[in-house]
Amino acid sequence: MKDFFFPNSVAVIGVSTHPLNLGKEIAGNLLEFKYTGEIHLVGVDGGILFGRRIHKSVEEIPDSIDLAIILTPAKTVPDILEQCGRKGIRRAIIETGGFGEYDQSGQSLGEKLKQTANHFGMRFIGPNCIGIMNASNGLAAPFARLKNVFRRGGVGIIAQSGGMALTYLNLFDSEQLGFSKFAAIGNKLNVDENDVLEYYVEDPETSVICMYLESIEDGRRMTDVARRSPKPIVVHKANVSSLSSSVAQSHTQALANDDRVVDAALSQAGMVRFRDISSYVDFVKILQLPRMKGRNLAIVSRSGGHAVIGADAAHAHGFRLPPFQESFLAEIRKHLRADVIRLANPLDLGDLFDFEVYVRIIEHTLKQETVDGILFLHTYFAAVEGAPSRKLLQTAASLSTKYGKPCAMCVMSEQSELSRLHEEFDFPIFLCPERTVQALDRSIKYQQRREFIASGHKLATPDPPADDHSLGILISSLGREGRSPLLHEALDVMKLAGLAVPGHRVIHDSEFAEEALNDLAGPYAVKVIAAGVSHKSDQGGVVLHVADKEAARGVVREMVDRFGGAGEAGFHGVLVQKMLPRRPGTYELIVGGKRDPQFGPIVLVGAGGIFVEVFGQASLRMAPLSIEEIEEMIDELPGAEILKGFRGIPPVNRESLKDAIVRIAHLMVNYPTIDQIDVNPVLVSSAGTTVVDARVFLKA
Amino acid sequence: MKDFFFPNSVAVIGVSTHPLNLGKEIAGNLLEFKYTGEIHLVGVDGGILFGRRIHKSVEEIPDSIDLAIILTPAKTVPDILEQCGRKGIRRAIIETGGFGEYDQSGQSLGEKLKQTANHFGMRFIGPNCIGIMNASNGLAAPFARLKNVFRRGGVGIIAQSGGMALTYLNLFDSEQLGFSKFAAIGNKLNVDENDVLEYYVEDPETSVICMYLESIEDGRRMTDVARRSPKPIVVHKANVSSLSSSVAQSHTQALANDDRVVDAALSQAGMVRFRDISSYVDFVKILQLPRMKGRNLAIVSRSGGHAVIGADAAHAHGFRLPPFQESFLAEIRKHLRADVIRLANPLDLGDLFDFEVYVRIIEHTLKQETVDGILFLHTYFAAVEGAPSRKLLQTAASLSTKYGKPCAMCVMSEQSELSRLHEEFDFPIFLCPERTVQALDRSIKYQQRREFIASGHKLATPDPPADDHSLGILISSLGREGRSPLLHEALDVMKLAGLAVPGHRVIHDSEFAEEALNDLAGPYAVKVIAAGVSHKSDQGGVVLHVADKEAARGVVREMVDRFGGAGEAGFHGVLVQKMLPRRPGTYELIVGGKRDPQFGPIVLVGAGGIFVEVFGQASLRMAPLSIEEIEEMIDELPGAEILKGFRGIPPVNRESLKDAIVRIAHLMVNYPTIDQIDVNPVLVSSAGTTVVDARVFLKA
Repeated sequence: MKDFFFPNSVAVIGVSTHPLNLGKEIAGNLLEFKYTGEIHLVGVDGGILFGRRIHKSVEEIPDSIDLAIILTPAKTVPDILEQCGRKGIRRAIIETGGFGEYDQSGQSLGEKLKQTANHFGMRFIGPNCIGIMNASNGLAAPFARLKNVFRRGGVGIIAQSGGMALTYLNLFDSEQLGFSKFAAIGNKLNVDENDVLEYYVEDPETSVICMYLESIEDGRRMTDVARRSPKPIVVHKANVSSLSSSVAQSHTQALANDDRVVDAALSQAGMVRFRDISSYVDFVKILQLPRMKGRNLAIVSRSGGHAVIGADAAHAHGFRLPPFQESFLAEIRKHLRADVIRLANPLDLGDLFDFEVYVRIIEHTLKQETVDGILFLHTYFAAVEGAPSRKLLQTAASLSTKYGKPCAMCVMSEQSELSRLHEEFDFPIFLCPERTVQALDRSIKYQQRREFIASGHKLATPDPPADDHSLGILISSLGREGRSPLLHEALDVMKLAGLAVPGHRVIHDSEFAEEALNDLAGPYAVKVIAAGVSHKSDQGGVVLHVADKEAARGVVREMVDRFGGAGEAGFHGVLVQKMLPRRPGTYELIVGGKRDPQFGPIVLVGAGGIFVEVFGQASLRMAPLSIEEIEEMIDELPGAEILKGFRGIPPVNRESLKDAIVRIAHLMVNYPTIDQIDVNPVLVSSAGTTVVDARVFLKA
Repeated sequence: MKDFFFPNSVAVIGVSTHPLNLGKEIAGNLLEFKYTGEIHLVGVDGGILFGRRIHKSVEEIPDSIDLAIILTPAKTVPDILEQCGRKGIRRAIIETGGFGEYDQSGQSLGEKLKQTANHFGMRFIGPNCIGIMNASNGLAAPFARLKNVFRRGGVGIIAQSGGMALTYLNLFDSEQLGFSKFAAIGNKLNVDENDVLEYYVEDPETSVICMYLESIEDGRRMTDVARRSPKPIVVHKANVSSLSSSVAQSHTQALANDDRVVDAALSQAGMVRFRDISSYVDFVKILQLPRMKGRNLAIVSRSGGHAVIGADAAHAHGFRLPPFQESFLAEIRKHLRADVIRLANPLDLGDLFDFEVYVRIIEHTLKQETVDGILFLHTYFAAVEGAPSRKLLQTAASLSTKYGKPCAMCVMSEQSELSRLHEEFDFPIFLCPERTVQALDRSIKYQQRREFIASGHKLATPDPPADDHSLGILISSLGREGRSPLLHEALDVMKLAGLAVPGHRVIHDSEFAEEALNDLAGPYAVKVIAAGVSHKSDQGGVVLHVADKEAARGVVREMVDRFGGAGEAGFHGVLVQKMLPRRPGTYELIVGGKRDPQFGPIVLVGAGGIFVEVFGQASLRMAPLSIEEIEEMIDELPGAEILKGFRGIPPVNRESLKDAIVRIAHLMVNYPTIDQIDVNPVLVSSAGTTVVDARVFLKA
């Protein structure tokens, strides 16, 4: 990727002197941003632009070229890319639209681009994009006319959409955040976000990576890179609904992801996801301050009202407002008339008008060991107190740096004054107390996540191990038959994986002898085993609470008659299973796995039974996973608290539940032909964790 | 209140020539804002200020005075108010702090102010406030030095905190929203928010009422006024947590409210509550546009990326994006090269660069019957396209007015350009697509709520009626005994109110004959009746699933022995109750009532049993209430969907549940000595609604 960002020479292909020509704008931007390399212009009509000759083709250019930027009609691009290849150009940005995002013939044009690139060993960005920018050498490929006004800084931008890339560039710049690199990568036919991401993680000029994505193709690679990244990676993943999918498809050829998987996987890898622009920018801003190491916050406010809403927000986000230490109070009393303000946290500066005292209070507060950071809420009319307020904010910012603790400043003033602060300051200014506190909270959670990942938890494996020998035989034999396991076989898979499965018998014949159940005591659950009956219970294929052997005989006979009649395909038999009691303290959970096309094997735990109807949330993770991650999954369940016991009901056997999840993960990771596992319900109680019903789907 | 806002003469009391004097600032503000009435200055030291004599007391002033603005040390204020009273001044604003918000002696000073005001028939605002402003006559009472820069408009501000009042004034002004009246009312010892609210509702210069409150004292009056208000009332109620309560107390003497009650009551009365500044301001901005009449939204976007995030937000907030009609498409195709954009909703204008075409598209979209409003997402660099973009936005705004549908404009551009738009335009500009859509959603919900209230639903009364005669006798006899009902009496209250209560017998003697249960079939629930045993089940005072009469005898004997031993106070007997079966399709709910000190009788419905442990939400309303409001309460339950039946389980008998809520409301409204009712659980199934256990607390 470095060759894309640091070319010594660039050819802009598709330039003409026509007033509406967009290639010209690319060349103009390279000049405007003072690109330090050599610029060559190419366009079939030739001519002169910016005092330079427009070559009719790249082949005309005598020198070697590091990077081609192509913006010509879609149907011409394959040939031009081929010319570039022959000319020895190994990097290209293809800005032209009209490929796979547009129609079928555009799709084939795109395929040709991929072939050509492979043939010549070229890499290209796009098509259908505005390309890249590099703040350190003036490389500016977009065809949108820009001004060279953006601050230089540590933000590396990766976006699928050019509009969003420029939006974020603008927003960051408005918020005192300069950029290092910029990449709008469009249809991602060759270079994708992971290539850029990997480069930014290494790039010494980039300190925080900001992504806008409408689709993720290789989620596993993305999360692998992210886990290793010492730099924060902030992601705005859009295209999450039925309303956006068609426009995203026609915009950047983006297909929707399973959003629950995206959420879980990015978080698991320490990435920070946002769904809206404002919170996203607030978070990147808060990263510019020293990191907050704990949840002890001091609120210092000029207005009592702001102190109140700041404290409400602190409470909502789980911060503590520790009382000030006596030494602090003594120090403060020395310096001010102690009778005008109450020295409490939140601190309402109320009747204090001397900004020198504000500074002293902020400094003493930062010095306190019990304080991890300050929320400073300042309000003023610029027309009256502009200059001293700006000085106060500057000083507070430098104190924050000096003491290595955040002093997040939230300013309420006139619009024009806020603009001025944004322009003059190189530290973040917030406008809304609640959102500032939210950003502080997210930054602490980010830190904790990074530490969690950095602590290098061991991946969990089943102990005692699964019977992989028998599992291998069973699953590959099913694979040869081209079918997924039937109910009793799915239960066998569970058993071989080491999960607890209640005793059961498979009965094929309606005239079965009750002795078949000799060593299996009632009550029973009776279930049909048939390939075509997936919603068994809806069709009367499940009868529960069958009291004894005599009753079981009747139920089995009826089921065999109904499902096993002549010509009924797929009928295999009837499963008679020991019915487990549902006592208070026994909970139904769902444990499952699925193979996500982008993120690989995923394990899922959720509330079962009636809860799943009402509260469909589940906790997901990419597998393999550590015991610590499994702990998190259980804690994330909507009913997690009740699993710990309440009102005299004992807690569930958590170890057995964790073990069950480890075993499902083992199946998903080690048996790649398994597409999906639904174990529903899993009964969890103080006695242990038991699989009552299971479905396993193999890849078709 | 009008006399406060339109005085012909004002006396500012507490003025001196000292540089730090704050009274001087009040006088300065009156001059700065060109107050149209006569200004008198008063201060014990006398002197000359702004070319006027400072009178040593109000009594020195020869003319009559309409309004006194007092800012003198707290201990002097009672005397000064008395002087004002004698002078015939009937309105005062007391800005001085140091009253009840500060300490005990301040509290007594406050009491004196109230007495003096009552004596003279005066009304006063404050103390501990910055007072009021009136945009139409230049009345500007705050002691904070201001500049006369604020737009005039329709926003009426009421705030408990001066800092927050000025913050909102500033924010609104920054967002093209002018103010009509401004009232920062501090400790609210005499005039409270309801007085101001009532006035704003009538005030022809005010079109939207914006409140910031840290406490609500008379919630019932507030909601009564709000229900009648044709103007939107937007409320930021803070002081909702343990962290803010102490600073709110010392800031404006505000005590915390039950926040769940505040939430429910304000919404019930058609007020719109926010908990953060940003969403609040966005909502007031969206009110400036024509109202959106339905949920059919068209998204028109210059960037595909913005279209994607706009569509995601629309989906998240329940909007529909209807396809465009053929007539519209034909019209558009006539005017533009149809091949460069896909005519879909969301509409990605992508490669279109001609703003004239944008205007045509917006106009045609607004004309479409299937479109209720537009989200227009525009992005540009001011340095390149500033002037034409501003013209485009202006035109879109006037088209929005012309067609009476909102065209909410969200602009992404440089910070300086955004400032410029905010200054130049008199229509709202939004900065974040997600928040714009959220504001549209809130405005539609507000409309629906107003229509719901305006439809004038009849208050529900029990039918058949409750046995109020017997209820009156029972409750007043308990009142005379100074105690709350015991378990069996609470069940009697339920029965007399007309609720279904399972059959039961009260047994006093451990040697009871089984015939006592002759006409009551098992299984039974056996519960101790004792005044001191409130958590019955924790102490073994409840035994469920008692199979038959024989077993019941044993349980009763054991309970009588344990709870009824010699010297055990409060033991009354044992209740043997028919135990109702808990079948699938039977749900445990909580129905209850409480008397809120600020909002009066409140009725509550919530999920019971295990749900209440995990999902503690309940739905609340002020009583009395209509059947339609009860319908809403049931629909708000976290498990509302399952009550409608699922997977072959029949729906519950909703009529019987509604009836039960009506009867609890009847008790709360008609028996003011009832402080609280907890009916938990109420069993609801297809068969009906039955009270299993009930507690009723009378006022001590």
